[in-house]
Amino acid sequence: MTETHIDEAMTDQRMHIASPHEILPEPTLSRLPWYLAYVSLLKMRRVAYVSSTAIARGIHLDASMVAKDLSFVNVRGKTRIGYEVMELERELRSFLGFDREHNAVMAGVGSLGAALIADSGLQRYGLDIVAGFDVEQTIIGTIISGVPVFDITQAAEVCADMHADIGVIAVPVEQAQAVAETLIEAGVSALWNFTPCRLLAPDDIVIQNTSIYAHLAVMYNRMNAKKTDIKR
Amino acid sequence: MTETHIDEAMTDQRMHIASPHEILPEPTLSRLPWYLAYVSLLKMRRVAYVSSTAIARGIHLDASMVAKDLSFVNVRGKTRIGYEVMELERELRSFLGFDREHNAVMAGVGSLGAALIADSGLQRYGLDIVAGFDVEQTIIGTIISGVPVFDITQAAEVCADMHADIGVIAVPVEQAQAVAETLIEAGVSALWNFTPCRLLAPDDIVIQNTSIYAHLAVMYNRMNAKKTDIKR
Repeated sequence: MTETHIDEAMTDQRMHIASPHEILPEPTLSRLPWYLAYVSLLKMRRVAYVSSTAIARGIHLDASMVAKDLSFVNVRGKTRIGYEVMELERELRSFLGFDREHNAVMAGVGSLGAALIADSGLQRYGLDIVAGFDVEQTIIGTIISGVPVFDITQAAEVCADMHADIGVIAVPVEQAQAVAETLIEAGVSALWNFTPCRLLAPDDIVIQNTSIYAHLAVMYNRMNAKKTDIKR
Repeated sequence: MTETHIDEAMTDQRMHIASPHEILPEPTLSRLPWYLAYVSLLKMRRVAYVSSTAIARGIHLDASMVAKDLSFVNVRGKTRIGYEVMELERELRSFLGFDREHNAVMAGVGSLGAALIADSGLQRYGLDIVAGFDVEQTIIGTIISGVPVFDITQAAEVCADMHADIGVIAVPVEQAQAVAETLIEAGVSALWNFTPCRLLAPDDIVIQNTSIYAHLAVMYNRMNAKKTDIKR
């Protein structure tokens, strides 16, 4: 039974090799980092080979879904042995874009913005924050965790000089839309939006929303629902 | 036409008033913070009333969807006038749980964990980080942005003393699952997971995944897809 699953995974994979430029379904894309995290763990434990079935068992997911998801990645496993752990880790990192450097600017270096600049984790996942912007005169001209802070009016010049393609937005709600427009005019092609606002932008701009406060709302709601369940 | 939409919204709303303990569809829950952000903006601009149609127009969403979403919130608008801005803001904040204090502990006060502790924004959204945990002896016993750091082995005692119900996890991949289990044993009922790992937990534990690195992967992929589009 287990072997059959592995065989299916291998076949699947040979048929559907996709380039990272293809648009994948977002659920698949969001699961791939789980597999990467698990495979990194196996590497630390010096495991040499792993099957998609074993990954599925390790993180409690459906085996055929894992096999299907991995079929998008440019890596071939061996029947009855599985994937080479080191190769799978390398290919997942590459497929997810974590091994390439993406230059980004941070708009808003207040509490959350400064925190994100300080998070060295982002660099390990391919995001290099090369400059910060703010409107606060006391912050402009300073250096935060090695990153120089400029006046937002210099956005176009700084983005061009530093080859920044991504604008991270962590400004107060009332400035979010205007700052998004300034960054788009400055030439970025993607906005990573940490504000709770819905940003409006032309179709050719990628917008990634990471509203951590919205996630809080979802979590509180689920907690309340479970409490109500228990009381019933 | 516009008036008709407002009327529909009002009717809808009288029929479906829900308690915050009801499980809402996650897409609705995730949109409510957008409305809150927009309504907060209107409040700053001293606007007194707003219709669901005007909110929809302001953030480019479908008017009937906004009306339906707002029908879950305990607030009544007036036909042809709309919602009172201050009341709608207050009710949205309350409905989303942002006006209540939720005590949380932070497991892992490295780069990302320390950054999240320093983010005063979380407190405005109802999350009060009351203690940190780490395994690093040089950090244990210190105070980070006002928050004391304890040895993770003291989790049960600290969570009980500080009435902490939520465990935020920002530890390295190889410790994520073990730390999740320690926090669950310590009595938390929800885990806010910032690691790229899939955590396994009993059904009565709420798990909220906020893998900001997975969002990066989605953004990189969309950027590549658009570049390929342009070349074609």
